[in-house]
Amino acid sequence: MTQAERWMLPDGIAEILPADAKRVETLRRNLLDLYHRWGYELIIPPMVEFTDSLLIGMGRDVDLSTFRVTDQLSGRSLGIRADITPQAARIDSHSFPRSGANRLCYAGQVLYTRPRAPMGPRAPIQIGAELYGVESLQGDIEVISLMIETLRAAGIREIHLDLGHVAIFRSLAQAAELDEEQKGDLIALLQSKAVADIERWVDENISSAEAANWLRMLPRLAGGTECLNRAREVFANGPDALKRALEELQQVADAVARRYPQVALFFDLGEMRGYDYETGLVFAAYSPGYGQALANGGRYNGIGAVFGRDRAATGFSTDLAAINALGDNGDREAGAILAPASDCEQLWQTAESLRAEGEVVISLMADSGDDDSETLARCDRELVREGTAWVVKPLS
Amino acid sequence: MTQAERWMLPDGIAEILPADAKRVETLRRNLLDLYHRWGYELIIPPMVEFTDSLLIGMGRDVDLSTFRVTDQLSGRSLGIRADITPQAARIDSHSFPRSGANRLCYAGQVLYTRPRAPMGPRAPIQIGAELYGVESLQGDIEVISLMIETLRAAGIREIHLDLGHVAIFRSLAQAAELDEEQKGDLIALLQSKAVADIERWVDENISSAEAANWLRMLPRLAGGTECLNRAREVFANGPDALKRALEELQQVADAVARRYPQVALFFDLGEMRGYDYETGLVFAAYSPGYGQALANGGRYNGIGAVFGRDRAATGFSTDLAAINALGDNGDREAGAILAPASDCEQLWQTAESLRAEGEVVISLMADSGDDDSETLARCDRELVREGTAWVVKPLS
Repeated sequence: MTQAERWMLPDGIAEILPADAKRVETLRRNLLDLYHRWGYELIIPPMVEFTDSLLIGMGRDVDLSTFRVTDQLSGRSLGIRADITPQAARIDSHSFPRSGANRLCYAGQVLYTRPRAPMGPRAPIQIGAELYGVESLQGDIEVISLMIETLRAAGIREIHLDLGHVAIFRSLAQAAELDEEQKGDLIALLQSKAVADIERWVDENISSAEAANWLRMLPRLAGGTECLNRAREVFANGPDALKRALEELQQVADAVARRYPQVALFFDLGEMRGYDYETGLVFAAYSPGYGQALANGGRYNGIGAVFGRDRAATGFSTDLAAINALGDNGDREAGAILAPASDCEQLWQTAESLRAEGEVVISLMADSGDDDSETLARCDRELVREGTAWVVKPLS
Repeated sequence: MTQAERWMLPDGIAEILPADAKRVETLRRNLLDLYHRWGYELIIPPMVEFTDSLLIGMGRDVDLSTFRVTDQLSGRSLGIRADITPQAARIDSHSFPRSGANRLCYAGQVLYTRPRAPMGPRAPIQIGAELYGVESLQGDIEVISLMIETLRAAGIREIHLDLGHVAIFRSLAQAAELDEEQKGDLIALLQSKAVADIERWVDENISSAEAANWLRMLPRLAGGTECLNRAREVFANGPDALKRALEELQQVADAVARRYPQVALFFDLGEMRGYDYETGLVFAAYSPGYGQALANGGRYNGIGAVFGRDRAATGFSTDLAAINALGDNGDREAGAILAPASDCEQLWQTAESLRAEGEVVISLMADSGDDDSETLARCDRELVREGTAWVVKPLS
């Protein structure tokens, strides 16, 4: 690398500089305080763990996203975390077990080998909350509420909530007697939302006319609240598990609409995100004009089983830097107070008192390069000697 | 790995669970606010960079401490940061340059391949501040002051400050005409503080009687403020650079003693920590009964040259989790308010109002496992219906 290249960052790896960093920090605090007020307790998991602990049950995406290094102490493979959720699940299972509901939250950098979307970040700051030990829809509703509150705290005014349920595809796949390979093929087609390809695939692979019809309809069942009514008609003779899933979607949608009438509700019954590890209701939040999901989550019951404790689980997370960039949390920087270069004892005491009151006091350095114009630009007041005292005056 | 082992963490890798995490978070906020009030602006560097950017000029310790992975996008080597300081230097040089003083601060996890001390952490949370563009001792004094304020904010009452200066050994090595290999050998001996071995090595290697005498004295020149007076006698005919270093130590010690009379001052003129990259005054803070340095720093002028901009630099950092564990920042958890399992609209509104006032309100879940005793244990009040309203009452 030449000298001129050493300051470059890898693609998708960003640094956050002062003006943005201050806003990110303010939002981080507001969100952790929000979770705290809902009873969610902060955990700080490490940025590496044994790969075996990080990847268990999290599906292929997280596996391929995870950088591995060899631990010089144990000789085992370590993974740099690509997701904090499995760490929270491990902590709920073993380090901080509760017999009833366990509410955990976190904020920290994660790292992906490749961006999840073109030009997307590879070292986002994941912030989120997870609820363990609660099977009922009350849990899903609490977590979705907290996700909405998160985006509102970030100053994102217009929120679209997308709801889906993995039991819909799962029960249809069972009804159509798909084998594992067929399931994989169809999931890939559904993920690409290629309706014509899906129809062709169904025609070629599914013999039962009824099951073929259900699968063909699946990518079309997306849209506003009327979508659930259409689904109830289409699947009137469908599997019981599917009908229960529709009922759950309805109940959650009703509860969210009561709490947040300004949030637009959408359904996507062919949504396959997280199909590898999600087990029930899945959800994502969007903002008009921004292509990627701003936050997402879902139910992933049973993940704790690999740590020896099978627990109900639901949660959500988001990228702190991304939602900060999109919203406006109203944080504005106030002007600082300039202290002259002097080792006067009285000046030190005065500066310390002002700092204790929350003021920013910047000491001018006798020799700081050619010019202090940038330091001066941050200040709107200065400390000036009057008699034996130092007083704050507007910057001259 | 068996199921029972999956919850294990690698040696030296710790997770921070709720009670501690809340205190760590409070201290983190207090410290970043402290730095902010001194004019230090927050940066959030990424946890990986090109290895070439992370390791430049930081010496062998950081090199050996850094995990490397291959970037799938560029094919280049990435380093998981073992130190945030070179990231701050890069940002001062290129991303956020200022012609005069530039004050930056940060907090984030770093990762070491091996612990720095036996049983030490491998994923500490490094928090610190760096001052660029200031050559004068005023800069060193500001940074040392901020390091002391950091430990006081963590509730550490008794602080010992150790001061050293790399120009002392550097000028003696020059006077004794040591070659690079001899210098390496002697540094290793000085680091191990093996006085007898040092004397034998000096007898065998140094021909000049005066230089030999100076080097023999070096490990003995450690202790309280009287140490500087002894050094002035020993080096009365010593190199000018050494005498300037003693003068700098005296000035900084005097300024710190005026500001913080309760901090005990020590000197160690044979201190070799950071010799690879430090260029002037070096300092570390200790607390009686705790063997490792709690915080340390020093002057590392010129580090920015590898990024194309040679700048004066001084700074310090510490491990947030370590100083949190040692101190008592007075943070106490207040009791929460329990909300019954109900989808009553009025209850939701009341809970939201209480949360907006800063109260913690935890919703009881209808089905959260066998027992809610742990959730109940966090609450000292509950929401009870009185007529059409919900009111807060002591927990029955």
